[in-house]
This record gives sequence, C-alpha cells and structure tokens, in this order.
Amino acid sequence: MNSNALSALERASGHQQRFVSSFEKYFAELAGDLDGSRLGRFPPRCLELLAELSLRGGKRIRIALLHEAAHLVTEEEVPGLLEAALSLELLHSHALILDDIIDDSPLRRGGLSTYYAYREDLPENPQAAMGLAMMAGDLAGFLALRVLLQAELPADRKQAMIDVQLGVTTDTVIGQILDIERDVTSSADESLLETVCEYKTTRYSILAPLRLGLLAAGEDLAEHEESLRRYATLAGISGQMRDDYLDLFGDPDITGKPVGADLRAGRLTYLVRELLAATDADEHNTVKSALGSPDCTPRTIDRIRDIAYRHEVHNHLQSAIDRYAEAASAEAASWRRHWREEAVAFFEQLPSWNTRRTR
Amino acid sequence: MNSNALSALERASGHQQRFVSSFEKYFAELAGDLDGSRLGRFPPRCLELLAELSLRGGKRIRIALLHEAAHLVTEEEVPGLLEAALSLELLHSHALILDDIIDDSPLRRGGLSTYYAYREDLPENPQAAMGLAMMAGDLAGFLALRVLLQAELPADRKQAMIDVQLGVTTDTVIGQILDIERDVTSSADESLLETVCEYKTTRYSILAPLRLGLLAAGEDLAEHEESLRRYATLAGISGQMRDDYLDLFGDPDITGKPVGADLRAGRLTYLVRELLAATDADEHNTVKSALGSPDCTPRTIDRIRDIAYRHEVHNHLQSAIDRYAEAASAEAASWRRHWREEAVAFFEQLPSWNTRRTR
Repeated sequence: MNSNALSALERASGHQQRFVSSFEKYFAELAGDLDGSRLGRFPPRCLELLAELSLRGGKRIRIALLHEAAHLVTEEEVPGLLEAALSLELLHSHALILDDIIDDSPLRRGGLSTYYAYREDLPENPQAAMGLAMMAGDLAGFLALRVLLQAELPADRKQAMIDVQLGVTTDTVIGQILDIERDVTSSADESLLETVCEYKTTRYSILAPLRLGLLAAGEDLAEHEESLRRYATLAGISGQMRDDYLDLFGDPDITGKPVGADLRAGRLTYLVRELLAATDADEHNTVKSALGSPDCTPRTIDRIRDIAYRHEVHNHLQSAIDRYAEAASAEAASWRRHWREEAVAFFEQLPSWNTRRTR
Repeated sequence: MNSNALSALERASGHQQRFVSSFEKYFAELAGDLDGSRLGRFPPRCLELLAELSLRGGKRIRIALLHEAAHLVTEEEVPGLLEAALSLELLHSHALILDDIIDDSPLRRGGLSTYYAYREDLPENPQAAMGLAMMAGDLAGFLALRVLLQAELPADRKQAMIDVQLGVTTDTVIGQILDIERDVTSSADESLLETVCEYKTTRYSILAPLRLGLLAAGEDLAEHEESLRRYATLAGISGQMRDDYLDLFGDPDITGKPVGADLRAGRLTYLVRELLAATDADEHNTVKSALGSPDCTPRTIDRIRDIAYRHEVHNHLQSAIDRYAEAASAEAASWRRHWREEAVAFFEQLPSWNTRRTR
C-alpha cells in the first residue's frame, strides 16, 4: 500500500470515528424522541438491537464518501451533513436486517444478525422472531427518512437531499428483488449480475453519499451527474467483486462471515461466474453441487478453494478488481478541473484501497 | 340504520369511487415513473401484486375521513388531498402485506395475500416467496412517503403533512411490535390491548386522515389536537372491537377472512377477553385450548361461538362497541362550534355506522 492510499484510509478513519460518537448520541436520544418506544418490553428491545447492529460498525465507507464529497466543494462546516450521515447508515441497517432475514443469516458484522438475536430471545417462536426482525428493519428504514426530514435546512436543499434518499430506498428494493430473481432462476446472465450490483450496492453505497455531500455543500448536480455515475459504477463493481472474492478467499475471523456463504446460498457472484468459466467438467460439477446447498461441508468449500487457486481464479478476479478500480480513479482525477485537490485525491485513492481490503 | 347514517355511508362511497380511479391511474403510471421497475421479470411482478392488493379495496374508510376532514374547513378543491389519499392507502398496503407475512395469512381482502400469491408463484421456494413479499411491503411503505414528498404544495404545509405520515410509520411499527409482544407473552393486560389498538389502528386509520385533511385545507391543528385524539381513540376502540366481534360472529363470505382466525393465532382480542371473563371453568378450557392452535377445527370454533352466544358475549361486546361509538359521536358534535355542519354531521354519524358493519 502506498502512502497516498494510506492517507485516504486515515481520512476515512477520522470521519468514521467522529461519526460513531454522533451515532451513539442519536440512539441514546431516540427512545425519548420516538413516541411509544418505551412501552412494554419489546419496543425498547427493538431499539436496543437496532442500535447494537448499527453501532457495531462495518467500514462506514459511505460516511467517508459523504464528507469528502462536501470537501470537494468547501472546507467549511456543512449543515445537514450529520443528518445525511445518520440517514445513510440507518438505511444501511435497514437493508442489512432485511437481507439477513431473506438469507437466513445468523451472523452480521461479527455478531448475531438481528433476526438471530430475536431467535435467541424467542427460541420457541421463530415466526415471532422473524416478525420482530422485520419490524426492526422497517423501523430503521423509516427513521432514515425521518432524520433527514427533521434536519434544519433550506426547503429546496432538503427536498433535493430527500429525493436522493427516496431514490435509494426504491432502488435498493428493486436491487433486492432482482437479487432474489437471480438466485431463484439461477440466472448467470452477465447484465443481470451488473444490474443487481448497480441497484443493490453502487447507488446507495457510493452514488448517494456523493450526491448528498455535494448537495449539502450547495453544489448543483446537473452537470456532474454523468461523471458521478461513472465513478460510482466502476468503483461499485470493483468493490462488489472484492466482496465476492472475500467470500471464498477471505479470513472469516476478519470478514465476520463464514467462508463460502455465497456459494451455499447459491448466489451467482462474479467469483462463481469466474469459477464456472475456468474449470473443467469434473471440477465444474463439484462447484455446481455446492452451489445452493446450505449444508455443504467446510471440506467441500476447501476443495473448491483449491480448485480456484489451481486455475488462478483468485488472480483473474483480482485483475478485474484492479482494472475497474483504476478506471474509477481515472474518472475521479478528471474532477481536478472544478473541485478541491485534497478531496479529489481522496476519491482517486479510495478505489485502490478497496482492492486490497480484507473485510 | 337511520337515514342520517345512510347519508354518511353514501358520502363515504362517493369518496371511495372517485379515489379508486385515481389509484388505478397511479399504478398504471408507476412502472414508467419508478426507476428499474421494468427490469427482469420479478420487479414488474412486484408492482403487479402491489397494485392488485391495493386496488382490491377494503372499506377505504381513511379516504372518506381525509376528504371529510378537509370539508370541515372548506367546500373547495384542496391541493395535496389526492397525494395524501394515495399515501394513506399505500401505507395501508404496506402494513397489510407485512401483517400477512407475520401472521402467515393466506387470504386478504377476499383474495390471496401478497405472501401467498408469491408462494403460488414459487411453490418450491417459500423463503424466496417470503423475501419477495417483504420487499413488496417495503416498497409500498417507501412509495407512501414518496408520493407525498412529490406533491406540489407550499413547503411548510408539505412538511407538516409529511410529519404526520412519518409519525404514522413509526407508530405502526411500535403497534405491530406490541401486538407481537401481546401474542408471545399471552398478556391480556387491558392497557396493552388498548395501546396496541391506539398505535396499530387508531392513529393511522383515523387520526392521520383527519390531520392530513385539515392540514391540506390550511387549518392549524394545535388547538384541535386533543379533541381529534379523543375522537380517534373512541372511534378506534369501537372499530377494533367490531373487528374482533366479526372474527367469531362474522360471515366469512363477507369479511373475506376465515372465522376464528384471531383465536387460532392466539390473539388476545377484546372478544377473547370478554369470552374468558364470562365463561366457567370447563368452557374456559375449551376457549384456552383453541387459543393459539393453528389447526383447531371449524367444529371447535363453532362450539366456542355457541358458548359465546349462551353467555351473551355478543351482546356485551356489542354494547361496549355502541358505548364507545356514542362517545365518539358526542365528541364530533362539539366541532359544530368552529367547523362546517355537513362534514361535522358525517363524523357524528360515522361511528354508529361502524358499529353494525359486516366486514
């Protein structure tokens, strides 16, 4: 890792730390602020689990993107940026909670998923546990919009920021539906793979923070829209490929997820596509037999990893990851024409950091 | 039914018919208006199922309340009223879709629930069916806010209306969580029963349409807040009791739901509370054994209904329904001091209509 990349990483980490204390404060005040949330036993437990998952972190890459996007325009404090940050992370919690119900995932961010936390609470009532997890996810989604609507901002700026987040909510639903379609119909259709990535990840993890930061800083987006989209798509595909890579080649102690979860779930990821393309008939069948078998053994996953190494799948995938990241960096470099150097450098470095991350 | 009550009913039916054609138009235009909704096969199917459930109707009582609330202030056309109506019904679809997943209900509004429609689509993949239904519900909730945010209204009026709907979203989640708590912990705690009704039904079915209609018509709510709340709570409890009544005494061909669904689900409704209070030891056990037994037979339900009739449970419950309805009517009568006669009469008559409805 070169020193430039390290500085992007340090900047991201600074944003993350400042954000976490605001996020803690938000949850500490939420119970007093949310009508009815102290009634009975279950509503307080819902807020507790939502706070736990949300504060357990993750990379908070959206937070760094948001702040640096505002820094593209100005070095000064930008009103509405905190609310946008809370909104982004609450919407992310929303997506994670519902994802984990759909995928029946016990683990998330190195702890229990919200769904499985509820299943531990109510071991004899999995249906109620599912309902409660669904409600926790539902609540997070609405809170994400609420926090932004309650921000004190000029009406037109607020409306523009709300429009971004509303677009994200419906995009994410469409992305999730397409993701299920991909799994159910076993479609390895390349364009569907990229569309899922675009709708389910790129738009809300990259494009939305960029837009929100720029809007909060008073920038008119119209003339930058295309370049922002290109950057988001390229960096998004690179990041999604790295996620897919880590499913087989990552260290579960670092990723916080069991190895081969995508394989077991039958997900046709970039990695699986590469794997199926590279292997011969026998190995092909080994991969196919593991795909979508929830009880496929760790040994089979090990065998598949060996097959992957033998065919250099890790190297091929990594090359693609690097290629997309480099194209994203080049796009960011073009922003020097109109935006501030320091923040442009951050967006330029970020994709290359992403290509080597381990979780 | 007296002629006054009939006229309230006729007015409600007029609002309903006008609304349905707007709602059809909304869905006809949605696919073109919602980014990504034409991709693949599953997103269009999601919109189709959402439209089907939403257009299949129900009583649309919220629509009548909304329009009549605006009529309390003015006879003229009120901008934003259509968007508020769409928002209310989309939020209702949201709640119904998620309710039916949580309760594992196959039927809704005389047709398949969204969840079971997906289970028919994907007979071999109930998990994916559940995920898709969850996404359809999720989408409906976000669309409910989106339609209001896109209304062309003065910023402060829009903000006030949005605040109402945001309050509804979180109230409904809290109500649903408390409802699950009531079922899981088998709590027959009276105050919990009323709190669930308040959060899950009254606020969004009665109070929100009232507030939205008045706000759209330019009324300042501050001085009316308490009276609106009283009306909503009294009418809400009366309506909830009638729902509970129909679970055992209703005609399934008219209600569109199987008899005894609440009993089978172990829901401690107003009816069940009355039933347990009125019966002796043996009958008590019959009721208790059916409560929360999904496969309790129609014959047992028939036996419980006989027990209920023998102890006049239907009459006791109906008296309570009438009492709450009369108190709500009296509250509405007090509005004559400041609001328009014709609409006041509607709110006065509505609760008594509600006490005899059959679905």
